[in-house]
Amino acid sequence: MKSGPSSRDIPRGFTFAATVCGLKKKGLDLALLTSKTPAVAAALFTTNRVQAAPIRLSRKHLQKARHRIRAVIVNSGNANCCTGSPGLAASRKTAAKLSGLLGCRAHQVLVCSTGVIGVPLRVEKILRAEAQLVRSSRSEAAAFQQFNRAIMTTDTRSKWAAAKFRIGGNQVRLLGCAKGSGMIAPNMATMLGFLATDAAISSPLLSRALSIVVARTFNAITVDGDTSTNDTVALLANGESGANKITRQDGAYRNFLAALENVCKSLALSIVADGEGARRVIEIEVCGAPSDRAANTIARTMARSPLVKTAFAGADPNWGRILAAAGRAGIPFDPDKVDIQLAGIRVCRRGREHSFDERVAHRKMLAKYVPVVVNLHAGRGVARVWTCDFTAEYVRINASYRT
Amino acid sequence: MKSGPSSRDIPRGFTFAATVCGLKKKGLDLALLTSKTPAVAAALFTTNRVQAAPIRLSRKHLQKARHRIRAVIVNSGNANCCTGSPGLAASRKTAAKLSGLLGCRAHQVLVCSTGVIGVPLRVEKILRAEAQLVRSSRSEAAAFQQFNRAIMTTDTRSKWAAAKFRIGGNQVRLLGCAKGSGMIAPNMATMLGFLATDAAISSPLLSRALSIVVARTFNAITVDGDTSTNDTVALLANGESGANKITRQDGAYRNFLAALENVCKSLALSIVADGEGARRVIEIEVCGAPSDRAANTIARTMARSPLVKTAFAGADPNWGRILAAAGRAGIPFDPDKVDIQLAGIRVCRRGREHSFDERVAHRKMLAKYVPVVVNLHAGRGVARVWTCDFTAEYVRINASYRT
Repeated sequence: MKSGPSSRDIPRGFTFAATVCGLKKKGLDLALLTSKTPAVAAALFTTNRVQAAPIRLSRKHLQKARHRIRAVIVNSGNANCCTGSPGLAASRKTAAKLSGLLGCRAHQVLVCSTGVIGVPLRVEKILRAEAQLVRSSRSEAAAFQQFNRAIMTTDTRSKWAAAKFRIGGNQVRLLGCAKGSGMIAPNMATMLGFLATDAAISSPLLSRALSIVVARTFNAITVDGDTSTNDTVALLANGESGANKITRQDGAYRNFLAALENVCKSLALSIVADGEGARRVIEIEVCGAPSDRAANTIARTMARSPLVKTAFAGADPNWGRILAAAGRAGIPFDPDKVDIQLAGIRVCRRGREHSFDERVAHRKMLAKYVPVVVNLHAGRGVARVWTCDFTAEYVRINASYRT
Repeated sequence: MKSGPSSRDIPRGFTFAATVCGLKKKGLDLALLTSKTPAVAAALFTTNRVQAAPIRLSRKHLQKARHRIRAVIVNSGNANCCTGSPGLAASRKTAAKLSGLLGCRAHQVLVCSTGVIGVPLRVEKILRAEAQLVRSSRSEAAAFQQFNRAIMTTDTRSKWAAAKFRIGGNQVRLLGCAKGSGMIAPNMATMLGFLATDAAISSPLLSRALSIVVARTFNAITVDGDTSTNDTVALLANGESGANKITRQDGAYRNFLAALENVCKSLALSIVADGEGARRVIEIEVCGAPSDRAANTIARTMARSPLVKTAFAGADPNWGRILAAAGRAGIPFDPDKVDIQLAGIRVCRRGREHSFDERVAHRKMLAKYVPVVVNLHAGRGVARVWTCDFTAEYVRINASYRT
């Protein structure tokens, strides 16, 4: 991956900024994305029953603004979750102050937070920094990269992806970034994703596209099975490219969908690759399941199994653990029919060991990207999920997060 | 815990033996438990869809023998799972040979295996050792301890518990042992438990007692959420104490039930305490849930959360992770009403931080046994589960199990 996008990757009419407001011990911790005109927006939020204050507020704002959004403000260092009514007031003040500075309505601002749960948010730090943040906003690649760094917590590298395509004679740009490396599970975890495009598209189609793509990308990854309280993926389309507006599921819509999937898949895989302590990405494909849904359940059970994930950490072709994880997923299948391929090597045929060279398998499993294919021979259902290996480093990171 | 039972703890009419048959790289790996007369038996097996050959065979044997069992033979070092029809034949031969030596029917023998999955079982090693195993069987504490050591895999210590109680004028003994430290999840994991009593009890009451007690003990623990393919808990009652037979749910039955629960709870907690890499046992009590079932779902979700378990490894009073895990369990509750106590200290009140001394909490969380109480204030449902902390050592053990 290139270290950052070029200025030509920046969608027209969007600006970015970041600053140090003092919520993190050090570094950038407050980020702003602005569209100069109201952008059509779609967003997906965590399914966790415990929802952070900014999630509750942003959900309302999106509705109240009829999906016409001017800005997204993000702080790292504090999740503003389990912080009661003062927490909600903090998110409200954040949006209110910003809307004053931008000259828009408060509900045209989305607010996101990521960091530690249960610690009161010192919102005055954010409020103090907002004016400078607005002043320094730029439609430049460097500003985008600063935005991207400011949203990071335990991430070891920033994650971005861009796409360009044409609608009619017009060039359209799509640029995305994401953060997240722990508490990552299907249905989103402490995962923030921000996507901006200068395409023009109707609100229903934008929401539809985001739902379809997130199911196949951000919701198909898991690091530790823990779903966070703060997950958000937001997509803003401001139409500043001048291209014709997408209003039905035609060729232009399909081009848009494909670009969105490429960008989101790239971001999702970057998150898995940066999974806390991870050394490799594991692609788990389940096929021959009774249904797609069943395939998904089995694939996710495998992807979450600590025994499977630690075996990958050791590059151990221990396919028995993979089959055992499938067996506890609650889906009926005949274990005596299952075939398993590990890193391109058939290791299990009809539920039994298929003679293979353990050393070769071990060597192949040391790769950065290891595919696993499990065929249940029980139907036509398929699913694909991505996870990472589970290393001692993960434990070290999470056993000492706060103290 | 004492290092081992005394001869007075051994139930009458049971003998034990163990030997080295060569399935493990070193040490005892074949164990035998025999009752001199057919014992009424009850057993519970793994719920994993992938079931090892010995599980499939023992289930049949139990039924065919009308729950009258003479012996249980156990090998460690190989799970005999995902080994196809040769695997099933291996278990069958194991039972057939033993029944010849004991002079009973083949279906009066239960067979258990634990160890690596997917590797063909070299059954000839077992068959060669059986005669010597039967000859060396003794009704002695030392023989029981050898049995206990022979069933271990990654366990770092043997686990046993005993109870004595009176029925009428007669002393009755109950002795149990268990193995398991990884792949431990509710609904049993690579967990073997063997319980022998010289009480006399009807077969339906014995099965009933075992189901009730296992739900509250062995099925209320989790180490890593991975349910094994080989789990078995077997309880044999041979009536050799001479006490009156228990045939209804009277005082004698209740005494029996209480003794069984004490023994099983002690064994279950020993397994958690010996969880791979574990440094402490965490007792999670959820109360005020919409129902007992809901409480259980939430308690188990917390107990399986890598983020919760790594926080305990670091003795970090990070209650936000506990609440976040509760929130993703799929059970409706109002996060703003939740109270949480950690190691006896109230850390969260009405979903928000309750002022507490982090250093004191950290120190208390360094204990061997840390209780957590989560009150949802959403009903009267309660549940209690036990888990252990998640350390880098767990990963080291499991990343290098085979290679």
